[in-house]
Amino acid sequence: GFAKLDFHREERQGYPEVVFGEGKTVYQIIEIIKVLKARHRRILATRISPEKAAAIQKEVENLVYNETARTLFWKNAEEQTILYQGYVAVVSAGTSDLRVAEEAAVTVEAMGCEAVRICDVGVAGIHRLLDNLEIIRNATVSVVVAGMEGALPSAVGGLVSHPVIAVPTSVGYGANFGGLSALLSMINSCASGISVVNIDNGFGGGYNAALIHRMANEKRGEQQ
Amino acid sequence: GFAKLDFHREERQGYPEVVFGEGKTVYQIIEIIKVLKARHRRILATRISPEKAAAIQKEVENLVYNETARTLFWKNAEEQTILYQGYVAVVSAGTSDLRVAEEAAVTVEAMGCEAVRICDVGVAGIHRLLDNLEIIRNATVSVVVAGMEGALPSAVGGLVSHPVIAVPTSVGYGANFGGLSALLSMINSCASGISVVNIDNGFGGGYNAALIHRMANEKRGEQQ
Amino acid sequence: GFAKLDFHREERQGYPEVVFGEGKTVYQIIEIIKVLKARHRRILATRISPEKAAAIQKEVENLVYNETARTLFWKNAEEQTILYQGYVAVVSAGTSDLRVAEEAAVTVEAMGCEAVRICDVGVAGIHRLLDNLEIIRNATVSVVVAGMEGALPSAVGGLVSHPVIAVPTSVGYGANFGGLSALLSMINSCASGISVVNIDNGFGGGYNAALIHRMANEKRGEQQ
Amino acid sequence: GFAKLDFHREERQGYPEVVFGEGKTVYQIIEIIKVLKARHRRILATRISPEKAAAIQKEVENLVYNETARTLFWKNAEEQTILYQGYVAVVSAGTSDLRVAEEAAVTVEAMGCEAVRICDVGVAGIHRLLDNLEIIRNATVSVVVAGMEGALPSAVGGLVSHPVIAVPTSVGYGANFGGLSALLSMINSCASGISVVNIDNGFGGGYNAALIHRMANEKRGEQQ
Amino acid sequence: GFAKLDFHREERQGYPEVVFGEGKTVYQIIEIIKVLKARHRRILATRISPEKAAAIQKEVENLVYNETARTLFWKNAEEQTILYQGYVAVVSAGTSDLRVAEEAAVTVEAMGCEAVRICDVGVAGIHRLLDNLEIIRNATVSVVVAGMEGALPSAVGGLVSHPVIAVPTSVGYGANFGGLSALLSMINSCASGISVVNIDNGFGGGYNAALIHRMANEKRGEQQ
Amino acid sequence: GFAKLDFHREERQGYPEVVFGEGKTVYQIIEIIKVLKARHRRILATRISPEKAAAIQKEVENLVYNETARTLFWKNAEEQTILYQGYVAVVSAGTSDLRVAEEAAVTVEAMGCEAVRICDVGVAGIHRLLDNLEIIRNATVSVVVAGMEGALPSAVGGLVSHPVIAVPTSVGYGANFGGLSALLSMINSCASGISVVNIDNGFGGGYNAALIHRMANEKRGEQQ
Amino acid sequence: GFAKLDFHREERQGYPEVVFGEGKTVYQIIEIIKVLKARHRRILATRISPEKAAAIQKEVENLVYNETARTLFWKNAEEQTILYQGYVAVVSAGTSDLRVAEEAAVTVEAMGCEAVRICDVGVAGIHRLLDNLEIIRNATVSVVVAGMEGALPSAVGGLVSHPVIAVPTSVGYGANFGGLSALLSMINSCASGISVVNIDNGFGGGYNAALIHRMANEKRGEQQ
Amino acid sequence: GFAKLDFHREERQGYPEVVFGEGKTVYQIIEIIKVLKARHRRILATRISPEKAAAIQKEVENLVYNETARTLFWKNAEEQTILYQGYVAVVSAGTSDLRVAEEAAVTVEAMGCEAVRICDVGVAGIHRLLDNLEIIRNATVSVVVAGMEGALPSAVGGLVSHPVIAVPTSVGYGANFGGLSALLSMINSCASGISVVNIDNGFGGGYNAALIHRMANEKRGEQQ
Ligand SMILES: Nc1ncnc2c1ncn2[C@@H]1O[C@H](COP(=O)(O)O)[C@@H](O)[C@H]1O
Ligand SMILES: Nc1ncnc2c1ncn2[C@@H]1O[C@H](COP(=O)(O)O)[C@@H](O)[C@H]1O
Ligand SMILES: Nc1ncnc2c1ncn2[C@@H]1O[C@H](COP(=O)(O)O)[C@@H](O)[C@H]1O
Ligand SMILES: Nc1ncnc2c1ncn2[C@@H]1O[C@H](COP(=O)(O)O)[C@@H](O)[C@H]1O
Ligand SMILES: [Mg+2]
Ligand SMILES: [Mg+2]
Ligand SMILES: [Mg+2]
Ligand SMILES: [Mg+2]
Ligand SMILES: [Mg+2]
Ligand SMILES: [Mg+2]
Ligand SMILES: [Mg+2]
Ligand SMILES: [Mg+2]
Repeated sequence: GFAKLDFHREERQGYPEVVFGEGKTVYQIIEIIKVLKARHRRILATRISPEKAAAIQKEVENLVYNETARTLFWKNAEEQTILYQGYVAVVSAGTSDLRVAEEAAVTVEAMGCEAVRICDVGVAGIHRLLDNLEIIRNATVSVVVAGMEGALPSAVGGLVSHPVIAVPTSVGYGANFGGLSALLSMINSCASGISVVNIDNGFGGGYNAALIHRMANEKRGEQQ
Repeated sequence: GFAKLDFHREERQGYPEVVFGEGKTVYQIIEIIKVLKARHRRILATRISPEKAAAIQKEVENLVYNETARTLFWKNAEEQTILYQGYVAVVSAGTSDLRVAEEAAVTVEAMGCEAVRICDVGVAGIHRLLDNLEIIRNATVSVVVAGMEGALPSAVGGLVSHPVIAVPTSVGYGANFGGLSALLSMINSCASGISVVNIDNGFGGGYNAALIHRMANEKRGEQQ
Repeated sequence: GFAKLDFHREERQGYPEVVFGEGKTVYQIIEIIKVLKARHRRILATRISPEKAAAIQKEVENLVYNETARTLFWKNAEEQTILYQGYVAVVSAGTSDLRVAEEAAVTVEAMGCEAVRICDVGVAGIHRLLDNLEIIRNATVSVVVAGMEGALPSAVGGLVSHPVIAVPTSVGYGANFGGLSALLSMINSCASGISVVNIDNGFGGGYNAALIHRMANEKRGEQQ
Repeated sequence: GFAKLDFHREERQGYPEVVFGEGKTVYQIIEIIKVLKARHRRILATRISPEKAAAIQKEVENLVYNETARTLFWKNAEEQTILYQGYVAVVSAGTSDLRVAEEAAVTVEAMGCEAVRICDVGVAGIHRLLDNLEIIRNATVSVVVAGMEGALPSAVGGLVSHPVIAVPTSVGYGANFGGLSALLSMINSCASGISVVNIDNGFGGGYNAALIHRMANEKRGEQQ
Repeated sequence: GFAKLDFHREERQGYPEVVFGEGKTVYQIIEIIKVLKARHRRILATRISPEKAAAIQKEVENLVYNETARTLFWKNAEEQTILYQGYVAVVSAGTSDLRVAEEAAVTVEAMGCEAVRICDVGVAGIHRLLDNLEIIRNATVSVVVAGMEGALPSAVGGLVSHPVIAVPTSVGYGANFGGLSALLSMINSCASGISVVNIDNGFGGGYNAALIHRMANEKRGEQQ
Repeated sequence: GFAKLDFHREERQGYPEVVFGEGKTVYQIIEIIKVLKARHRRILATRISPEKAAAIQKEVENLVYNETARTLFWKNAEEQTILYQGYVAVVSAGTSDLRVAEEAAVTVEAMGCEAVRICDVGVAGIHRLLDNLEIIRNATVSVVVAGMEGALPSAVGGLVSHPVIAVPTSVGYGANFGGLSALLSMINSCASGISVVNIDNGFGGGYNAALIHRMANEKRGEQQ
Repeated sequence: GFAKLDFHREERQGYPEVVFGEGKTVYQIIEIIKVLKARHRRILATRISPEKAAAIQKEVENLVYNETARTLFWKNAEEQTILYQGYVAVVSAGTSDLRVAEEAAVTVEAMGCEAVRICDVGVAGIHRLLDNLEIIRNATVSVVVAGMEGALPSAVGGLVSHPVIAVPTSVGYGANFGGLSALLSMINSCASGISVVNIDNGFGGGYNAALIHRMANEKRGEQQ
Repeated sequence: GFAKLDFHREERQGYPEVVFGEGKTVYQIIEIIKVLKARHRRILATRISPEKAAAIQKEVENLVYNETARTLFWKNAEEQTILYQGYVAVVSAGTSDLRVAEEAAVTVEAMGCEAVRICDVGVAGIHRLLDNLEIIRNATVSVVVAGMEGALPSAVGGLVSHPVIAVPTSVGYGANFGGLSALLSMINSCASGISVVNIDNGFGGGYNAALIHRMANEKRGEQQ
């Protein structure tokens, strides 16, 4: 059969199993998490409203809810959260972009990597970005989150030489067309080293960044 | 009749009469310019190809052709080119945006205002913009020209406190959709003090800037 | 450091600090306003619902709520509202455009400039516009607000020789696509001297107009 | 069979048979015209380039070519061109819209109705429209042709009480998106009494207007 | 002044004054209707919900509410409803299009013309249309209302020789994009004699049809 | 390996191997055909210009070129063209749609099925469709090809009870947006039994129809 | 009259009469079902919410509600559900696509054909599809349902040689634009043998598949 | 000044300086390359037509032209092409996507990394992809290039656990809208670990992949 092809996802240390919570009932999420706990060391659930989170936490122990990111995270008690050296920079433009940036940061952490958050550094006040340049440059990879005109990834991309994962958000109004404006900006960026995920897909931004970070950095507390 | 309402455009000193050359024949443009010369001190024609320009210059004296802007300019021999103090900054992102930026600059000059050109300062290398910050800040108003992701006006808008006229260009490929990407970026800018004209409309950018500049600055060599 | 570059916004007399209220809680807005009051003479908050406004006004004294514009304005008791000579015309097409026009007018005033409102003068009854022509022509700059086909800025632009800031609104239905129809009309205007801000962005329209007005007019009660 | 239902188009006096020339060869058009001449009193062919027209005129006598409209018209020698009292106003905004307006006017005439042309009266100079108000108001119906922001039908619609057929054109550049901007303007017009045909469809505009005109006016030289 | 130009809409017998109810409060509508009653013989208000209608009817006598069309109509007691001979055909495709078709029919009647309704004759069962062919052909003009693929006006246009006013509706789902699909179909119709109004604009369809009908038909009970 | 899965397309009698000619050089097409001839009984090449066809025919014998469809077809001398009983109806709206309809018909034939062509039966003259109703109804499946408003598949779908494959074409101008208008019409059809392929994809329409036809009909000259 | 043309849909055994429930009241649906029961052996109602279903079931006996598909099905007690040999494969990508897939499957069954459901086999885990290959290949026709990137029909189309009816869903967020992304994917599929219905149109997918299946397969328990 | 901030791009070993050839003249490109040769060890020029390439190669020695990728590459004679261990997989769907895939591969190589090309493995024949699974899985990162429905990155993303850079191409016709269809597919992919660059941007795909590869792999012939 196909077993030889090893299609089945092996359980790799530090890779969370991820549940997309939108459109799932509290009951369904609880059942899924219970099953996953037996086989995985880390579980991440995204798009969980505060009400759902409270109900789920009553039935499952040790779930950490992040209100901004709207995520639930669980890990085996013996498991360390951060497994790798170095860090991923999660850079965001405005206050309203925070929920997406936080989804990215939480995903990075769920993948066993450290996330350093740099917030409110949109291009309309470029000095705020420059003030944080050292910390961004020293990251392995940046996740850059912006709505409205979505210009921040271009500015960051021009200042760093590592890969930038750009996350457009639906923040804005009028001719932003639910994030299309930011998405087009990022796809058309004149800076090199930028690639883009879906509108509001903080999870995707964080997941891509962590995949890169893990390959590029050694594990903490061990010599590879 | 309507004469009392003064609908007819009075001939104001320093306002050029403008001819839109696209879709007009060499013969038509020559005829129009000849008529205008009798009544105006300054004439600007835009969207003139080099071939057309050469043919027109053979028939009309003292026409200056700008190859990048693709404009023809004529002024009465006694007329000074620059009539007002101060200057307009014409800032552009990339080499391919130059033809639009130059159309803007030539229009500013045809309106009797000085244009200072700052080129190749796109956001992917933000230090190039910062190196030119003093000269941009000292202008009365900026025309900012960019294609692709169209992020430059946001960056400039955040660094200056004067009005910014943003001109999106059709420069780019793929998902730039003929300049739509840059237009949406500029319309959705999170910086205040930015307003936008049509894609590739360097003329409009320069005209708006000059209208503002003339109101804000005194005439050279006179006390208003 | 960057201090030499003077990135930090100096406190200029008559420039309000502006709070974008959408998506912020009552508590957050109160905290922000309290902090700003210590350092600024004028504060404007936009996109504030009547309910939020009432709650905020209970905690902060001397806030003026404009129900149509949905803005809160505060100024230092010693500060005069209008600081400059002359006025900005705020011209709007239909009754439903009033909320956007009023946001523009309140912004103009918050910037220390006088706003003269001319309402309900849409192109479908052009005589209404012509009846108000003198007052519009005597302004320094016009903010022109229209939804549906967004034709008003073209008509105004053809009648005045000062700059026109066009504000498309989402007013209409069917193929207006949330204001896209009006936005495209204004961006494609055949009148010169028109530039455009985002759909429903009354604040942007007013802010741009005031920037121009302040440069073009002397302060009241002083000889510059 | 279906004959009872009278599906077959009867030959009505004064209705031209119309040939859409685009994509047809000279040979095909000649053959079609030859066949039609035997059965019809009037033939109109649209979208005919000057080269094709010259070739066709060599083979078919008494064809009148209109270079602006790019139409060929033939009528039986005994047939009067204009059959009805009154007239249709064909109003257009700019010089580049003339080819579409002329296609409309020629179609009106091919239908046996008089067309009065009012050109170059775009909204950016509204006095030009007002100067022609009487002649437009006295028409039975108006065809109003405009590109770019497409605002003219709204202005005309507000000044007349007869039906207005609006024809958007592809004239313009940048964000006009091949006439979409003008089409959306016209479909969203706030004036009543306006209906719209396809971009550049001068034929459709003229045909609709003539259908209305014929019903509303008596035949010349007869008492109905 | 402008009085000579007669901009002010004269009160013509049988033209209703029309109130667009959407976005207006019950109180505003009552005040407007009260003022209009003093000067007009007929008043039509559109886009009135059942709740609003009930509240308004309590304050104003003799208002007739049409639940499908969501309109309120009032006329002077001495005024006859139908003033003109002949009729307008109001043809609609499916049950869900009825609310728009009824808005058209009520508008036709408010204009003093008779409306004959032909419903549920969409192209997916073309025999239903053919069964009603005689009654449609005998009308002066047709208003044809359809959503989804919007094909009905093309079919009707090919079967009648009078003008067709096409009204696209937002009926449908998925790739109908809120009526865009039907609008594009109608604008691109290969049948001649069709012109189009905005999505869901039953009022516009009826108003255009009545304008044509009144010009083409004599008044009842009088010899013109 | 994967051989067990039988991924490799077996050579089934009567299925042509198809070459997409667009973007391939004459040389490449000749080489491909030569290789295929050794292993297949039927070869179809689509999107072949007349110039390319002539050059290819010089090198490969027995290739039949269809100028309207722009296809080349080759079959083994012993192979019969039509292998199945019954027929597929290929119905098209206008003359300009013929090239797409013919691509569909040729594909049907290359698949060993009979294609009956019914042309020029667009909805603007519905009697033309009704005159051909018997022949369409007796087909196993219909391919219906239309541009502009794309209404024909809805009309056919309502008259037959077999499956309809709808093929939108790019025929038209203005707001047809390269076939988008016809595509949306067909996707939103209110008739059941309709499914849609890409704009101008006559090949896809014919291929789908033939797949169905072959399953539904017995082979000629044999008892299955 | 038209009777000869047999426009009226004959009652064919096994074809359900279908009611589109969206926008209809409980009362309307009950009345329609009551009328249909007298003349038909099978009735299918789609887009019925659980609340409506419960209310309808109280008034009409023997209605089967499918909660996922949101359908009501009734058949004459003597009628067998499955009438034909063989089966239709209903293949879906993700859990959220199930409601659309189930609407397709229920429609297939209402047409008297067997539906085999293969769920959760999206392309992001292609082995899940390959594990089900035999069962899909042995079907007469496949309905393939997918949202987000809509890639599943291409993968299935490449693995089977029978017709594939592709159903895009609105599942996803951000740049999926309500299903447009999946629709475009399917329309542009590079696999042959795929045709597409509207977004979320499970009914259309099932109906097309059953039309094909019935023609291609013999009735159960009879020798044709 | 800004020197402290180190904005100026240091010359890093193995990073090519890249020239975008589109819109530049032969003369301009030659001048740029001459200047760069003095300061860099590697130069890549993209979007160079064969004619331009020939002319440039006459003036500059040791330039290697890649006809498919339309690139020119130069490196210092002492410089090794491949500097890093491991490889990047460049996977493409169809023959027409090769020019974009090759631009990606050449860019990867210009960055000093090895590129392994896997071509013609589109999802319509998934076994072709599975046959190459081992070689793709053993890469550090994949660049996946596809036009039309753009489904390949989703399939690859589900089979590998390394990052995938997706490159949509403009290959296709009709409703592919110049690559928009493929772009939307990739942005909406349900597989994790995928990020996207602009349509036809092979350079961007290769550049991003090489950035990641260099961080994740040791240099050849050295112990870091
Ligand atoms: N916020 C998110 N946005 C996009 N994809 C997500 C998100 N969260 C989880 N996913 C993806 O959804 C998959 C789980 O989907 P499901 O099986 O429906 O729970 C995960 O493997 C992730 O690839
Ligand atoms: N490059 C340009 N882009 C947009 N508008 C222009 C341009 N050049 C001139 N115009 C406008 O076109 C008008 C002249 O048009 P025309 O009468 O056709 O020559 C001028 O008054 C300007 O408002
Ligand atoms: N310029 C035009 N634009 C749109 N439709 C036209 C035009 N000229 C002719 N037609 C229509 O095309 C039909 C003739 O098309 P054909 O049979 O292809 O020559 C006429 O009956 C008109 O309805
Ligand atoms: N006119 C056409 N439109 C769309 N697809 C086609 C067309 N002609 C051939 N094809 C498809 O293209 C495949 C061959 O592509 P290629 O290998 O590039 O020659 C065939 O198997 C068909 O599926
Ligand atoms: Mg960079
Ligand atoms: Mg600023
Ligand atoms: Mg003006
Ligand atoms: Mg009117
Ligand atoms: Mg007709
Ligand atoms: Mg049918
Ligand atoms: Mg297949
Ligand atoms: Mg993966």
